[in-house]
Amino acid sequence: MMPINFSAGPSILAPQVTQASAEAFQSLPGVGLSVAEISHRSRPFEAILFETRDRIRRLMAVPESHEILFLQGGARHQFAMVPLNFLRDKTSYYLDSGIWSSGAFSEAKTLGKAEILAESPERDFRQLPNTSKLTIPSESAYIHSTSNNTIYGTQYAEIPTFSGHHNVCDMSSDIASRPIDVSKFSLIYAGAQKNAGIAGVTIIIIDKAWMAEGRNDIPSIWQYRIQAKNDSMYNTPPTFAIFVLNQTLLWVQEQGGVQAMAKLAQKRQQLIHQAIDDSNGYYRHAVPIAAHRSTMNITWNLRTPELETQFYKQAEQAGLIGLKGHRIIGGIRASVYNQMPLSGVERLVEFMADFRKNNP
Amino acid sequence: MMPINFSAGPSILAPQVTQASAEAFQSLPGVGLSVAEISHRSRPFEAILFETRDRIRRLMAVPESHEILFLQGGARHQFAMVPLNFLRDKTSYYLDSGIWSSGAFSEAKTLGKAEILAESPERDFRQLPNTSKLTIPSESAYIHSTSNNTIYGTQYAEIPTFSGHHNVCDMSSDIASRPIDVSKFSLIYAGAQKNAGIAGVTIIIIDKAWMAEGRNDIPSIWQYRIQAKNDSMYNTPPTFAIFVLNQTLLWVQEQGGVQAMAKLAQKRQQLIHQAIDDSNGYYRHAVPIAAHRSTMNITWNLRTPELETQFYKQAEQAGLIGLKGHRIIGGIRASVYNQMPLSGVERLVEFMADFRKNNP
Repeated sequence: MMPINFSAGPSILAPQVTQASAEAFQSLPGVGLSVAEISHRSRPFEAILFETRDRIRRLMAVPESHEILFLQGGARHQFAMVPLNFLRDKTSYYLDSGIWSSGAFSEAKTLGKAEILAESPERDFRQLPNTSKLTIPSESAYIHSTSNNTIYGTQYAEIPTFSGHHNVCDMSSDIASRPIDVSKFSLIYAGAQKNAGIAGVTIIIIDKAWMAEGRNDIPSIWQYRIQAKNDSMYNTPPTFAIFVLNQTLLWVQEQGGVQAMAKLAQKRQQLIHQAIDDSNGYYRHAVPIAAHRSTMNITWNLRTPELETQFYKQAEQAGLIGLKGHRIIGGIRASVYNQMPLSGVERLVEFMADFRKNNP
Repeated sequence: MMPINFSAGPSILAPQVTQASAEAFQSLPGVGLSVAEISHRSRPFEAILFETRDRIRRLMAVPESHEILFLQGGARHQFAMVPLNFLRDKTSYYLDSGIWSSGAFSEAKTLGKAEILAESPERDFRQLPNTSKLTIPSESAYIHSTSNNTIYGTQYAEIPTFSGHHNVCDMSSDIASRPIDVSKFSLIYAGAQKNAGIAGVTIIIIDKAWMAEGRNDIPSIWQYRIQAKNDSMYNTPPTFAIFVLNQTLLWVQEQGGVQAMAKLAQKRQQLIHQAIDDSNGYYRHAVPIAAHRSTMNITWNLRTPELETQFYKQAEQAGLIGLKGHRIIGGIRASVYNQMPLSGVERLVEFMADFRKNNP
């Protein structure tokens, strides 16, 4: 049986995506060269880049007010590029829901004024910050959030946004997995390697008016406006990673778009939650509050770390790869992004039942 | 007949590299998953990354004093990252031999003090700067050069370095194409997509002692030391691009290493130069001084721009792709990087003879 990859990223790809990408790496239909060895300035590649952009616009209902860019460097590069462009005299505010948002906050502090607006109660990142009773500052450079926390397995059911402020969101681990109202955000960024393809390309969705306000006394390569003016080809783009992104989005589209992805995600989550809830406490949710649980990274514990080790090692032998929890918190984590088939989750759930039976 | 890609980059790949990479994209031997869908923290991927690093060390004879990193963002990202790390109170100096070195210089100016140490005579980039009679400053932050100029087709036969200074070199368009003495450089950087693989990964070779002197009050993602400390996995690396880089280096190694690459490069250059020199002025070298001509990007002119257009259009119909010169200077440019087979150059040379006969 084919192994199934449950690791937090780079993530599993749909067979159709793998097949089409491997073929194009050998020979792009109609061109006869590898898609990775043609000039990014050639018409065939430009067509791929523009198609990818259009597909994101349609799938995520990106309004014309927003530009779509493809950059390199992943989310961590954006942790620095956002404050570099937009942090001047005003303060930036961060919702701190875990390691990634803390990382984004740290980078901002090296470049200007940054404060935590809200954080997980007692900095226990198994919970989300309470954003309902916040005192919102009257002005800000921007307010930054992280929609999903891969390490602890939390996710905002609705991403908090603040009217009158520029909302910036790191959606690296749940982009294109559910409908969102893009118009509420001034900037969305996401590495592609979890829900939308392979490592090496970052999707940026940015409000054009805000982009125009960005600093222009910084290196040109780090200015969003220059990348936008050059259709994301100010420097050589990661051409093959963009090709795979396009194939992944095509697959999402064929499945029924982000609405279908959201339904699939709920189905996957339900299956695993059921296996946990039906286990009489043998498996225990790592995230105590049900409404805070991620549909993308599902985390749970067994009664001892030793048993957890046994669990993920035996799972690996059964072809279920990458279930070991993040080293910071241990436990078990199943990362079930867009391209994780239900059959993969069913195999996991079966394994959970068998393991429980065999290790009472 | 297979088309041949003569464009300035992304460049042609050896069939063996394309084949092995396409196969691994479907299923990595011994793993059964796409090399692009496994975790970068998994043992199989770490083994690939370390092997790639070791291969560069051996092929380029990188001394133990230097660290090898894999970053994203291409050369343009390094244009900014170098001064961000190393430009403090001292001045940085640039050898300006064309558009790319000018670009590097511009980025440095946004971050600190930067001056042109030498430039092509009358800023005619068909010639290299004269570096033999320079007044060298007593101290500098670093001195930056660009080894090969893809647009005009010039290349330093020996890259100028200055003892007592930190020499930084952009080798994006000729890395691993000839032996160089790495110990003379404090930092070498190169996008992989011309001589060493596909777009999306940048090779960095950096002196460890200098790296330690870099600023640590800048965003962590842009500090070389942090990338080094994390084995280039501070953020998710472009895993597949690194796989292809490794395959390309394996191919270079099997051909006989950078010495063999240098011989091949001379052979290719000789073939094309011969076709130009034997044409009774029908084809004319774009770079007047023979010693300044690049082995990587060979540029020439025909008697009118119209005839040049005819040339590259007919060449394309004959399967010789990407011969149009850069829009800044026009003319014809054949980019013949490491993986360009001699048979490709022979086809070009035959076409040159035929075209001349048919368009007297």
